[in-house]
Amino acid sequence: MSVLIKNISYLDIENEKIVDNADIFINGNKIEKIGKDLNLEADETINGEDKLLTPGFVNAHTHLGMSYFRNYADDLKLMDWLEQEIWPIEAKLNAEDIYWSSMLSIIENIKSGVTSFCDMYYEMHRVGDAAIESGIRGVLTRGMTDVDGEGEKKLKEFDDLYKNYHNKSDGRIKVVPAPHAIYTCSTEFLKEISKRAKENYDNIIHIHLSETINEVENSKKDYGMTPIEYVASLGYLDSQIIAAHCVHITDEEIELVKDKEFYPVYNPSSNLKLASGFTPIDKLLKNNINIAMGTDGDSSNNNQDFIEEMHIGAIVNKAVEMNEKAVPAIEILKMATVNGAKALGFKNLGLVKEGYTADLNIFNLDSNSFTPRNNLISALVYSANSHDVESVICDGKFIMRNREIVNIDEKKIREKVIEIWENIKNR
Amino acid sequence: MSVLIKNISYLDIENEKIVDNADIFINGNKIEKIGKDLNLEADETINGEDKLLTPGFVNAHTHLGMSYFRNYADDLKLMDWLEQEIWPIEAKLNAEDIYWSSMLSIIENIKSGVTSFCDMYYEMHRVGDAAIESGIRGVLTRGMTDVDGEGEKKLKEFDDLYKNYHNKSDGRIKVVPAPHAIYTCSTEFLKEISKRAKENYDNIIHIHLSETINEVENSKKDYGMTPIEYVASLGYLDSQIIAAHCVHITDEEIELVKDKEFYPVYNPSSNLKLASGFTPIDKLLKNNINIAMGTDGDSSNNNQDFIEEMHIGAIVNKAVEMNEKAVPAIEILKMATVNGAKALGFKNLGLVKEGYTADLNIFNLDSNSFTPRNNLISALVYSANSHDVESVICDGKFIMRNREIVNIDEKKIREKVIEIWENIKNR
Repeated sequence: MSVLIKNISYLDIENEKIVDNADIFINGNKIEKIGKDLNLEADETINGEDKLLTPGFVNAHTHLGMSYFRNYADDLKLMDWLEQEIWPIEAKLNAEDIYWSSMLSIIENIKSGVTSFCDMYYEMHRVGDAAIESGIRGVLTRGMTDVDGEGEKKLKEFDDLYKNYHNKSDGRIKVVPAPHAIYTCSTEFLKEISKRAKENYDNIIHIHLSETINEVENSKKDYGMTPIEYVASLGYLDSQIIAAHCVHITDEEIELVKDKEFYPVYNPSSNLKLASGFTPIDKLLKNNINIAMGTDGDSSNNNQDFIEEMHIGAIVNKAVEMNEKAVPAIEILKMATVNGAKALGFKNLGLVKEGYTADLNIFNLDSNSFTPRNNLISALVYSANSHDVESVICDGKFIMRNREIVNIDEKKIREKVIEIWENIKNR
Repeated sequence: MSVLIKNISYLDIENEKIVDNADIFINGNKIEKIGKDLNLEADETINGEDKLLTPGFVNAHTHLGMSYFRNYADDLKLMDWLEQEIWPIEAKLNAEDIYWSSMLSIIENIKSGVTSFCDMYYEMHRVGDAAIESGIRGVLTRGMTDVDGEGEKKLKEFDDLYKNYHNKSDGRIKVVPAPHAIYTCSTEFLKEISKRAKENYDNIIHIHLSETINEVENSKKDYGMTPIEYVASLGYLDSQIIAAHCVHITDEEIELVKDKEFYPVYNPSSNLKLASGFTPIDKLLKNNINIAMGTDGDSSNNNQDFIEEMHIGAIVNKAVEMNEKAVPAIEILKMATVNGAKALGFKNLGLVKEGYTADLNIFNLDSNSFTPRNNLISALVYSANSHDVESVICDGKFIMRNREIVNIDEKKIREKVIEIWENIKNR
């Protein structure tokens, strides 16, 4: 399968500019050639006039299965919300429930230009199935806790998941272990996962870190260290860390992680809505830390709209810093694409560049958001909305065309989720 | 013209709840009857199943004509941005240019559920024409300055605007004077406008107030008072004030204005993007101040997406207060509707209530944002996007149906704006 896109504008992130009138030749799952007036045969040729091509976005931290809890139990403190509302009802979910809610979240992700996700939840084999069926790229990270005394069971489950799903679908699916957080895992359990990540898996770990002040205070009290110092003391900085949140990362912790494969994931909507705080993005950027972006789950966001996430993430930090130039649009686009790909461990992903994997978004410029056509880099971050994403290509294949999801019946998914949710509430 | 909507859910703001299975009878421009199983003849009957009716939104502070400057000269300080980038090119705009850009902004407003705007710009007669043609409700406020020595000319222009447009189109159009800001108007000019507002007009004034720290510091230096204290000393609190921004309103100023007809307009996207700061919404709410919401202009927002504005406005204040319960969704919906209507001086507007003016939005609940259907008040603020607004009714007439703007050719407007902008840049 090959696709030739003629005369399109594209986002060149490395050179921080838009290139106009380019032809892009996609062969198999690769961007094989970028040039002017390419004279190549392709299975499909697309007119790229009035369109803008960007890398597909990387949603580096989410909980796809949580869409049942969208607009459920809002306006509560993180721990009250988790302990009193979310965890009791979450305990009722089975693998099939999670398959359907993950499907809904995957649709939302694709419809806002996301081509890769990193999901932390459970019954992850069914999330993997949903990803495979939809055509999206995904990192399956089984959220593991042992405070419930079931650590061993989860490690076993994870091992099966890794054997059965890692590198499935031509490498589109990856499997990474995820100790949920320092407040839900014992020291021994955190150490055991670190050991296995190095010995048995790919030495990547996904974890919630330093999300709330409460977490930091408890960490200091329990371990005499802040959360990132604590996991560092357990050997975590010898692995690649997908570090969700880092809202309260300290200057000392920044020094500790800045030259490591430690990749914070910025989830602005969730951090604001749960009143977790303002992540020091400007400071992280100044320390050349590779920041990725995520939507977090529908339960705390309350949507999976990645374009809105970019907008919110960009503007809120200007006010935090009282500096209009802080966190410019291009830095947000890097977080959303190439930084996210790096954080998730995908090679040659996240750029519109020859030799890179063909995960791409086609934006329709004939929209109010892009009228008139001034700085398109600004437009993507400050004025666009998810409906400006016209088509989405993942691994060289269309997974959305003209706003229609290709491989899934979107309306059926909504109906199933509503039906199942009514059932869950009555269990 | 009468419309009967059968079996719809609607947002009852006064009782802070959603009412299901209601019939709504709209006769002329009024909501005449709300009930169950209404047995009434209507010119048009609509099936309201899977829909949610809300009041139309009130965009209480914008600059519709500025859409040329969307994504133009981003990431600059407010005064640098105004003085070096915006004002020089704005000076080249003529009345026809402003008509077309206002039309684009009006379309964006309608498409995110806005049925009333308060616009501060110039050549306002052509903004009035655009509003009349589109069918939207609008307050035309001529932004007046005299630092350029042309105060008299502007007062005369305003007088003509008031004579020709005030209460036009069955009262859908109102005209209100707008001294631009304390830093662009002399004391004498501010006083003269206040006098005329009371004697010649409707005693309502629209003004930018306390937007930046710089404005506050200069006010203290120049007048020995903060901006709101200063305009109060000029008699402004004896008028109804539409006070755009109030980002840096002090506790003393809150005491001064809390029992007056002083209505701050919260513009979160613009205040964040221009790094103006965080408006103390929680404190204003606790003082029972009637807060309205606005998008501000495309040049600083950079869109007119009112739904996104509600979302951002809601979540950012939770983090500011470090309190998840601060600024709950229902308060944002009040700001967006009935509070805005009050701020703009419209009577019986902003509620789905018998006897109220029929400015209404029909949301499509068969969308990902509303799946599953948990708290719909949360959903409107935290998970919805502008594309969930299916149809918009203003003054009893449809101005958008199934996402199609009724009275304007949307594509033609975009083409004109692009064409004119190319021309402006070459003037």
